[in-house]
Amino acid sequence: MLAAGLLCSGCEQGSDTNTNNVPNLIVIFADDLGYGDLGTYGHPTIQTPNLDRLAYEGMKFTQFYAAASVCTPSRAGLLTGRLPVRSGMAGNGRRVLFPDSELGIPDDEITIAEALKEGGYATAAIGKWHLGHNSEYLPTEHGFDYYFGIPYSNDMDQVAQGTRDEIYGDPQYEYWNVPLMRNTEIIERPADQRTITKRYTEEAIRFVRDHAHGPFFVYLAHNLPHVPLFRSEAFEGASSRGLYGDVVQEIDWSVGQITEALVQEGIAENTLVVFTSDNGPWLAYNAHGGSAGLLRGGKGMTWEGGMREPAVAWWPGVISPGSTTDAITSTMDLLPTALAMAGLEFPDDRILDGRNILPLLRGESVEQIHDAYFYYRGATLYAVRKGPWKAHFITQWAYRADNQRTVHDPPLLFNLDQDPSESYNVAADHVDVLTDIQNVVLQHQAGMDIRPSRLDARIEAQN
Amino acid sequence: MLAAGLLCSGCEQGSDTNTNNVPNLIVIFADDLGYGDLGTYGHPTIQTPNLDRLAYEGMKFTQFYAAASVCTPSRAGLLTGRLPVRSGMAGNGRRVLFPDSELGIPDDEITIAEALKEGGYATAAIGKWHLGHNSEYLPTEHGFDYYFGIPYSNDMDQVAQGTRDEIYGDPQYEYWNVPLMRNTEIIERPADQRTITKRYTEEAIRFVRDHAHGPFFVYLAHNLPHVPLFRSEAFEGASSRGLYGDVVQEIDWSVGQITEALVQEGIAENTLVVFTSDNGPWLAYNAHGGSAGLLRGGKGMTWEGGMREPAVAWWPGVISPGSTTDAITSTMDLLPTALAMAGLEFPDDRILDGRNILPLLRGESVEQIHDAYFYYRGATLYAVRKGPWKAHFITQWAYRADNQRTVHDPPLLFNLDQDPSESYNVAADHVDVLTDIQNVVLQHQAGMDIRPSRLDARIEAQN
Repeated sequence: MLAAGLLCSGCEQGSDTNTNNVPNLIVIFADDLGYGDLGTYGHPTIQTPNLDRLAYEGMKFTQFYAAASVCTPSRAGLLTGRLPVRSGMAGNGRRVLFPDSELGIPDDEITIAEALKEGGYATAAIGKWHLGHNSEYLPTEHGFDYYFGIPYSNDMDQVAQGTRDEIYGDPQYEYWNVPLMRNTEIIERPADQRTITKRYTEEAIRFVRDHAHGPFFVYLAHNLPHVPLFRSEAFEGASSRGLYGDVVQEIDWSVGQITEALVQEGIAENTLVVFTSDNGPWLAYNAHGGSAGLLRGGKGMTWEGGMREPAVAWWPGVISPGSTTDAITSTMDLLPTALAMAGLEFPDDRILDGRNILPLLRGESVEQIHDAYFYYRGATLYAVRKGPWKAHFITQWAYRADNQRTVHDPPLLFNLDQDPSESYNVAADHVDVLTDIQNVVLQHQAGMDIRPSRLDARIEAQN
Repeated sequence: MLAAGLLCSGCEQGSDTNTNNVPNLIVIFADDLGYGDLGTYGHPTIQTPNLDRLAYEGMKFTQFYAAASVCTPSRAGLLTGRLPVRSGMAGNGRRVLFPDSELGIPDDEITIAEALKEGGYATAAIGKWHLGHNSEYLPTEHGFDYYFGIPYSNDMDQVAQGTRDEIYGDPQYEYWNVPLMRNTEIIERPADQRTITKRYTEEAIRFVRDHAHGPFFVYLAHNLPHVPLFRSEAFEGASSRGLYGDVVQEIDWSVGQITEALVQEGIAENTLVVFTSDNGPWLAYNAHGGSAGLLRGGKGMTWEGGMREPAVAWWPGVISPGSTTDAITSTMDLLPTALAMAGLEFPDDRILDGRNILPLLRGESVEQIHDAYFYYRGATLYAVRKGPWKAHFITQWAYRADNQRTVHDPPLLFNLDQDPSESYNVAADHVDVLTDIQNVVLQHQAGMDIRPSRLDARIEAQN
């Protein structure tokens, strides 16, 4: 629900026509895809010709961040343009929603879909939601005209018994009782995950073609390559990387199909397509998890590998081919960027952490987008980036036995521009930088209203 | 010197005209550049638009190997098409040549330059040689009409005193008494390394323009980004990666200048340009060393990071744009490929380890290029690759305190296609593969004639 009125400046079209040629937006969000998992980000055996081409024809981001290192808060951050601690979608207990969770994204948060609807956009969420699966939290209650997908992760509702190797090594979709929904109805359970990427793609293309007159917003959130891994028959053995590679290659195929549909409909030059991922690779799953490339760590961590993502923006005629940027950017920038594209203004009753990157996409500006970037794990601030510098106050490995929390005083300090792998702590040489960052943190925390976590509440057992 | 006659089939042109349109060859060889150091291999803050473009317009190799993990043997392997242990240019004592070394590449080895001269090629070696600096070992004695460069590494002949940080942190070219040579004469000492990449580029372009009628072979072996790092004024502060990034970006600029000259001369479609590096990044130099990206280890090691290199081939009209290959390929393939391009045959009195990859470049074949690939450290076989499998018999870190040799019995086994970072040893699950690889090693060793190392002999002190 839209809590506060959006001001529409310069967008007078009705909801059925796009007379002002307001641009369309497609956000394609992979799940647990690592920084190093695409060809153009250096993977040797995963072939991603479509994404490589989009990067080459458009803009490749090399310092683009997810809003969190795990699923639920990352998605909340993307859709609200705000740090997930502001919406209660991050917590130090449970860190994501589960099938027995009671709550979801709060009603008073404004999603990209809600914002764009004020500008007459048709809106669809296709794929994984994971912001609440009870009725009042579903996509159709939060700005989306249409929903097709699974409401939480594809590894939840496990019904089969066995070791991790038995269950995940050669996964069968019946091992999980995950529901597939259309709007508010469950239409298939367990979801047949073997064809799910293909079906998401078909749904997205159908929506694009049905709304080719625009404007539209499609949020296509693949639930893969999060384990368990599935791909359709056409991609069995497609990649020498094995099952994980097959899955990524099907997502790459999907991207190609969607952009091809845009070209066929003659709307490619009026559509911004952004591809990225929700968090880093799930390293604990070995070859079934991805690669963070040269970055340290992965999913669940505030090391770069947990939150820095591959990201590509494609908009023929607007983004110059061959563009690369190392500007600090984020999924939270998508909401203000979408508003700027649509000529809409955001209510001033709340803080946005994202920034409008339209000038960056247009090549108009190379100035700093973010003064500072804040890395939370759950609702705790673990690290801060300011310019090239990243200070870690706390570090913690995730999903393995030796994952104890380590508090650093003085903080660890890395120059990420020069040391993207976070290998050489230079805190001792840059006491001034640490002081500067401590001040940034104080300012940030003074203005921060952390909302109590909504992730711990559970539905009472129903039997 | 050419020890054995080369048979010229179908190349009847004289040395001054290129009536048969035999293709030109330019090999650009960086020094200590890591797998992860170019934009198209995933580096976030080193901008390499020229190499990225060449990769996109040509072929990007993702499993391309140097012949060794250090300088001298790597160069011997490239220029002879043979494992450096066959030419005595690898050893377990000294592993490279030094200013007090007596010997160099043997007279009876056939270099690419010697081979191509039989086909009427004009030949130039520009840059670092490191295959012997005494008169009988210089490039002009081994098939090159012209030589301009430094005879060994840019960190040799150190004359300044100080800690590593003092000497390398802000290097001055006078700290090293490295000679710069033209043909057989020293023309500058110490070489002014600040402008050396620029001057190599000018020399290469001049040679290309002077021999635009072809055929020609240019071996441009940059001595950078090997430490100490230098770049010309125009590249000071060019990269947010710092000095190392500036240096790589000047090399990228150089590549752009050379390909632009080919286009201007109208010979781009008759010239194969190959760019790669001699070995992995020198990790011990922290931010002054490069990155192996997602690969394990670096220079001096038989982990992938030590020997797998970024590699790009560009040949407009022959290589299809957007080609990527994960075929196992090597610098040693360049000699047989050059011979095939020139229509020359190699004497059958010696074993070539390289294979002709012309069909691969032309998109004619995707079959396996190498049955097996052998990773030597010095003159000792440390590991073998067969298909996706790599068995390590010995591993050893390099250039750090804890670099003890570890013998593995059973060997470590990795599936590199699925696990490029060599993270998950799967030896226990694949005993059959280990047996197969042991047989490959026995066959290889039965046919291997290791030549005594030429790297240990020293000139007597001359004062």
